[in-house]
Amino acid sequence: MAVRLNSPKVGDLAGIKGLRLGVARAHIKKPNRRDLLLMVLSPRAQLAAVFTQNKFCAAPVIIARQHLQSGSSIRALLVNTGNANAGTGEAGLAHASEVCRATGELLSCAPQQILPFSTGVIMEPLPVGKIIQALPACVADLKEDNWLNAALAIMTTDTVPKAVSKKIEISGRPVTITGIAKGSGMIRPNMATMLGFIATDATVAPSILDEILTHTVELSFNAITVDGDTSTNDACLLIATGEAETAEINDIQSPAAENLRTAVTEVAVSLAQAIVRDGEGASKFITIVIEQGRDREECRKIAYAIAHSPLVKTAFFASDPNLGRILAAIGNADVAELEVKKIQVYLDRVLVAQGGGRAEGYQEQAAQAVMRQDEITLRVCLGRGAATATFWTCDLSYDYVKINAEYRS
Amino acid sequence: MAVRLNSPKVGDLAGIKGLRLGVARAHIKKPNRRDLLLMVLSPRAQLAAVFTQNKFCAAPVIIARQHLQSGSSIRALLVNTGNANAGTGEAGLAHASEVCRATGELLSCAPQQILPFSTGVIMEPLPVGKIIQALPACVADLKEDNWLNAALAIMTTDTVPKAVSKKIEISGRPVTITGIAKGSGMIRPNMATMLGFIATDATVAPSILDEILTHTVELSFNAITVDGDTSTNDACLLIATGEAETAEINDIQSPAAENLRTAVTEVAVSLAQAIVRDGEGASKFITIVIEQGRDREECRKIAYAIAHSPLVKTAFFASDPNLGRILAAIGNADVAELEVKKIQVYLDRVLVAQGGGRAEGYQEQAAQAVMRQDEITLRVCLGRGAATATFWTCDLSYDYVKINAEYRS
Repeated sequence: MAVRLNSPKVGDLAGIKGLRLGVARAHIKKPNRRDLLLMVLSPRAQLAAVFTQNKFCAAPVIIARQHLQSGSSIRALLVNTGNANAGTGEAGLAHASEVCRATGELLSCAPQQILPFSTGVIMEPLPVGKIIQALPACVADLKEDNWLNAALAIMTTDTVPKAVSKKIEISGRPVTITGIAKGSGMIRPNMATMLGFIATDATVAPSILDEILTHTVELSFNAITVDGDTSTNDACLLIATGEAETAEINDIQSPAAENLRTAVTEVAVSLAQAIVRDGEGASKFITIVIEQGRDREECRKIAYAIAHSPLVKTAFFASDPNLGRILAAIGNADVAELEVKKIQVYLDRVLVAQGGGRAEGYQEQAAQAVMRQDEITLRVCLGRGAATATFWTCDLSYDYVKINAEYRS
Repeated sequence: MAVRLNSPKVGDLAGIKGLRLGVARAHIKKPNRRDLLLMVLSPRAQLAAVFTQNKFCAAPVIIARQHLQSGSSIRALLVNTGNANAGTGEAGLAHASEVCRATGELLSCAPQQILPFSTGVIMEPLPVGKIIQALPACVADLKEDNWLNAALAIMTTDTVPKAVSKKIEISGRPVTITGIAKGSGMIRPNMATMLGFIATDATVAPSILDEILTHTVELSFNAITVDGDTSTNDACLLIATGEAETAEINDIQSPAAENLRTAVTEVAVSLAQAIVRDGEGASKFITIVIEQGRDREECRKIAYAIAHSPLVKTAFFASDPNLGRILAAIGNADVAELEVKKIQVYLDRVLVAQGGGRAEGYQEQAAQAVMRQDEITLRVCLGRGAATATFWTCDLSYDYVKINAEYRS
């Protein structure tokens, strides 16, 4: 029951020269579904990555970080769904390494040139044998025009595959950006969330790629929440293959960097929004805009306090303009010297609260009409500065409880 | 569907000499239910109070703080349910003051000697007229032996009234402590939660009363969470009427102070646990014990991260020993340098996780058997110190969503 989210079609997704994708059925959790994805990069490709801040981070996150720190040029990414290889101790690390070794052997490169990613159930041993057995099928399937299958192969509780392409021009040459993501539950902004892979054929210096990714994640994957739980396996990668033969972007202030950053951010925001639209049990897509803050951090805190309140989320589910819960959530944010009298709250264009209470002339009918929509913008003006933050979240429904009560059965 | 929580009987509750209670039907939200409580104190009574940290705190909280700061001796507490008088701006403040003025008139004292408390729906105007009309009935009903009716009169979504009595001896003289509380949703520890009124007939110096209340709240009401939302109206009061004719307790280190503090804490813990047992939609009562921490604060953070995770809470609801969600929640707590390899996790007496993964010889059946119980202790040993914290919470069920989706209808 994703909120206004359609599956992308094959024709919507442009391949990225220098990046081939192959999928296979490894029967990891469910039989006969695509659950393994191999992404092979051209030798000149550059890559930036951010990972979960969860201290119980998964074995593949630890191994991927080690391989990136080793300075080896990364040749391939291997992603499995159905098993997170998290909370698996020393054995989990050995399993993640073993998968990299086997992939490296097939691709004639060192294990350190492979980055492993896993998503799915936590604390179950990774079925390494099944994965290794399916690797040749992944290799046989490698092609540039395979993004939709890739998006399908990394889904867990997602009901819709998430993939977006965008074409821009940099210095007069066409450049493509394509990204995929997965995620539906255990979603909360914290440096990186869920799995996201975005690639472009532009040529970008590594430090610039890092800066673009950090900027992008802050405005997209770090600005969403479904249930406030940060996963053990979150990762987001940005790959630049350089195959579009554009001049290398090596100045973050240049128009080319600005151009690319804007386009990558648009792709990431679209994927992040898709995760919320497909949030577990979601029936409403809610945009939270905090304006007139002293700094972005306090706007984020207030946005998050609202987006994370189960009372606000159930009120949205019930289409109930229970404004008190929204004010209570704002008041709970850890923001100093907040003057509640200066705060204005809007549901779409309806001013609902001001002066510490209901807005003058407030009509519940008007607020009710907005709440019945399946897309709602909640805007809070703090009246104390010029900073803003935009967050996206969904409601809390019976289906959220159902999905998570029955997840392992 | 409160978890193992029976209504107290009239005989269970001992009156406190020097404190009379009267209830009445003011028809504030629902017709014909007791929704107004007046508590009148003897002139020698001392009182300590803590209030919500929510910045959108309710009008009665603001007025009560002002009256306490005015230095007036407090004569009476007036509590209404059905309307929180929160998010009501200037009009709300005028309403709370008006109620105090009318009460003071009836009791022949100044408005500043009255503390107002409200609980119920937020952002609706307080029906002052109805309350003032019902005040004489409250006065007519005043008696010491009226605690159960008082507990009934302050309920909102509570399904069971919450009241406890305890008798101790101080310096050879009998002393009684009786307390009532209300709360079921919008419950999260933050200095004070919900409404709680605890009284004793001991004689206690004001500064000692403050110290005892702070200590008590930290170990009781600040150690529970139902849904992580801090209310706009939370308050907890400790009253010492001095009518037991004990020597004044004026040294926190004295055996008498220690004795009283322990008993008051027991009463408060019992009331706090009752709130969780009656948590909205609760089907399980979960005790979270964090041990071997460096300090209490980090133990609290981890306890809270677990207690607040909707994924952990739905797993408890489903009786699913989904250990990964518990580890992920621990890893999400904002605690520096946590070594996951040193952490041990127990469900009751079953060691389920150690060394960053499943415990050796872990049998899902054993964990499953514990999860099926309606009372479960989750114990986490951090292996890095001697600090501890104990929290209480409940699961997240379909009924939580139902109760909060239909709250105003």
